[in-house]
Amino acid sequence: MDTPISTLPAGFAEALADIVGPQGLRGGEAVGLIHPGQHEDNLAAGLVVSPGSTDETARVVRACLQAGVPIVSHGGRTGLVGGGISRGGQIVLSTARMNRILRLDPVERVAVVEAGVTLEALQEAAAAHGLEPGIDIPARGSATIGGMISTNAGGLLAFRNGVMRHQVFGMEAVVADGTVLSDLTRVVKTSAGYDVKHLLIGAEGTLGVVTAASIKLYPKPAASATALFSMPDVSALLDTIRLALEPQAGELRAAEAMWNSYIRFTADEHGWSDPAVPLDAPLYLLLSLGGRDEDALKGAFEALFETVAERYPDITGLIASSSRQEAELWRLREDTEAVFRRYPGSPAFDVSLPQSEIAAYVARIEAELKAIDPQFEPYIFGHLADGNIHLLLNRAGPLDAGLVARVEDVLYRTLKASGGCFSAEHGIGAKRIDPLYATGDAGKLRLMETIKATLDPQGLFNPGKVLRGRIPS
Amino acid sequence: MDTPISTLPAGFAEALADIVGPQGLRGGEAVGLIHPGQHEDNLAAGLVVSPGSTDETARVVRACLQAGVPIVSHGGRTGLVGGGISRGGQIVLSTARMNRILRLDPVERVAVVEAGVTLEALQEAAAAHGLEPGIDIPARGSATIGGMISTNAGGLLAFRNGVMRHQVFGMEAVVADGTVLSDLTRVVKTSAGYDVKHLLIGAEGTLGVVTAASIKLYPKPAASATALFSMPDVSALLDTIRLALEPQAGELRAAEAMWNSYIRFTADEHGWSDPAVPLDAPLYLLLSLGGRDEDALKGAFEALFETVAERYPDITGLIASSSRQEAELWRLREDTEAVFRRYPGSPAFDVSLPQSEIAAYVARIEAELKAIDPQFEPYIFGHLADGNIHLLLNRAGPLDAGLVARVEDVLYRTLKASGGCFSAEHGIGAKRIDPLYATGDAGKLRLMETIKATLDPQGLFNPGKVLRGRIPS
Repeated sequence: MDTPISTLPAGFAEALADIVGPQGLRGGEAVGLIHPGQHEDNLAAGLVVSPGSTDETARVVRACLQAGVPIVSHGGRTGLVGGGISRGGQIVLSTARMNRILRLDPVERVAVVEAGVTLEALQEAAAAHGLEPGIDIPARGSATIGGMISTNAGGLLAFRNGVMRHQVFGMEAVVADGTVLSDLTRVVKTSAGYDVKHLLIGAEGTLGVVTAASIKLYPKPAASATALFSMPDVSALLDTIRLALEPQAGELRAAEAMWNSYIRFTADEHGWSDPAVPLDAPLYLLLSLGGRDEDALKGAFEALFETVAERYPDITGLIASSSRQEAELWRLREDTEAVFRRYPGSPAFDVSLPQSEIAAYVARIEAELKAIDPQFEPYIFGHLADGNIHLLLNRAGPLDAGLVARVEDVLYRTLKASGGCFSAEHGIGAKRIDPLYATGDAGKLRLMETIKATLDPQGLFNPGKVLRGRIPS
Repeated sequence: MDTPISTLPAGFAEALADIVGPQGLRGGEAVGLIHPGQHEDNLAAGLVVSPGSTDETARVVRACLQAGVPIVSHGGRTGLVGGGISRGGQIVLSTARMNRILRLDPVERVAVVEAGVTLEALQEAAAAHGLEPGIDIPARGSATIGGMISTNAGGLLAFRNGVMRHQVFGMEAVVADGTVLSDLTRVVKTSAGYDVKHLLIGAEGTLGVVTAASIKLYPKPAASATALFSMPDVSALLDTIRLALEPQAGELRAAEAMWNSYIRFTADEHGWSDPAVPLDAPLYLLLSLGGRDEDALKGAFEALFETVAERYPDITGLIASSSRQEAELWRLREDTEAVFRRYPGSPAFDVSLPQSEIAAYVARIEAELKAIDPQFEPYIFGHLADGNIHLLLNRAGPLDAGLVARVEDVLYRTLKASGGCFSAEHGIGAKRIDPLYATGDAGKLRLMETIKATLDPQGLFNPGKVLRGRIPS
């Protein structure tokens, strides 16, 4: 095995500075001032290059290809699977300076943005026209559009609008073989040859760098309402989601499930309680409706509650009466950081499975996790309308590798056979490569390796991520 | 240049019969009994092989790879760009015998189907559970799911649900390099490495054969209503679509525009007229709403008409009062065959552009087509909510090649710069290769060629389609 190069070639940083200018290059102590994001080794390369345009990006990439220097692309550094980890001898290519919204047309309902624009910035710009992107994730303040494309982000609205892949009409990118892809189409309908941009969506920087994209926008409802229902079981919860999907005063915008242990944890963390919804039920469902009129939406929630209560008389429910109360309910679901504060380095799991399989899956894994360790009490929550379940363990990390393998076996073993996926929205990064090879379709893995070898024969793009590393020939 | 082989190797047909059985192979006179579909040369290969499973398909593909025999895959043969044309020395690989719906679960709202299932068969099976696929095209009775995936079909619902690409959760396929991809995931959220199935979506059989897919289903509204409004101009029409998209009693399910010359043509063909909507306006908009209650939908149309009429007082409108009248209105839009009956072989064009660009585009091309020939009166219609315009010429084909080039220049020249696409939903096939190279992004073309050369180095999958042929090395 060859030893990784731990330093850059002499004069390389200076050559990059010539391309991006002094404001585009940070090394040495200046790197220490940048927040490393979700993994402490994200900035270990020690050199952060921030091109100001696609053209500058292409020149940086060409310089790296020529010198054999690996490139780790960074967006908001909010990834949870170590996709942004770098080391000496590599460069971090940050999209931070490509942060302009190039076009936002309310008639065509498409935004053309540079890769470094945060989701929140796009949400704010779109809201000024009564529009919104069709995707939303809790990390909206830091996650960038380029990073969300590279990880094929999912989030709260995927059950309705699909995932990030489905929002991207056009893309500009520098592909690993040096090709500049410039296809900023602003229409949903293109049937004009291979849609190569989909190779880069979800490739986590291993096939190139996304520099800009055109993104579909949707009408943003003028009013919203939020409710929390307790639920006796998964079947009742899915039933309620189906009822909430039927046309009514508003459209369903979120259907987030929280198992008892999770909601008790975050409620305790924030001192939340409400007599209307005691925390003694097996499951909770946080629902959001959007529409034209807030009172009509609350009326729709009342009608929904009555219908559901006829079927499941023991449920309880609460409709938020103020935006403060709405935010409090959302914090119960979104403050996953609370778990990490109590159990630092606790492993996070992110699976998806068809709705028909959820109840049996959760029952099985709870039993099997207890069999591994009776103290395990997993925190389970997620986007149940699209079958995406998140699971955290009540154990500080890093866990022993053997234990991780046993837990992963419990969580992942049945997913492919039941039509699900072991990585719903977090990606593979550095941390999920073994499960990908253990559970992925052999044909898909072979095609992935063929494509990687074709487009990045030197293995310079985000090495050690997504695919098993090979010694470059 | 090498001469194409015009006959199959000795014993090859027999070897295929051993794989697919006698019921899976048709040659000689039996081929003459099969309808050739939209192009008379589709079955010119003279041998149609119909595997009964993915495994049989893989064995047929391996036999062809070994013998160097080209494969032209066929679904319903409804493609409009010559993507199914075959010739001697090739085989036609038909998915006709892979026509089973393998799974359709109303809880998870996903159907798993073999590639040869027609859209209509899937629509009927889904309707039994109050569901529907999220895509609809006039050729629903013959178009297959495999063919719609291979051409990335668009159709009537794309403005709401996206195109075929956005409906495909999982795929089984035999890729051109012989790899069997078996990834029939039934969830929308997968962020597990390169989503290689997207390479085959829209590749028109040049990168492999799709054999099965899991397809997203949607709740099917219990009631529908249809209306026809006359419109003074494109801007008013887009305004009306925006108003119709706002939440109301029902959801907008179709917004089809017809320019005056087109609706007069099909109305004349079918002897249609209605005093409520005289055919003297520049434009017509056919709208469909879906919801729970037909009367409420008609009420929504009345309210919409009043709102629009306040802004544009000269409009006229008609709400269909029976399903017969609904069908008559739809026939005005969908019977494009009427044009081809009068002008056989007339060229068809299929472009998409952002809504903000439509009015200027149509004005320009009408003027420039008249400048080429004052007798040109294009028939223009399309799915205006997603910017997809179809255009037919009042001229029997085939046109002189020089004239085609001038017309294509008029229609395609500005599309890339304005964020549109010269092939919205019909694909490239054999007929749109020159425009693809003339207007496509150089980087995209280069990546397409790299991928084709990697996965199909012998050039055996649908040769002469999508990409420019090269002499195999």
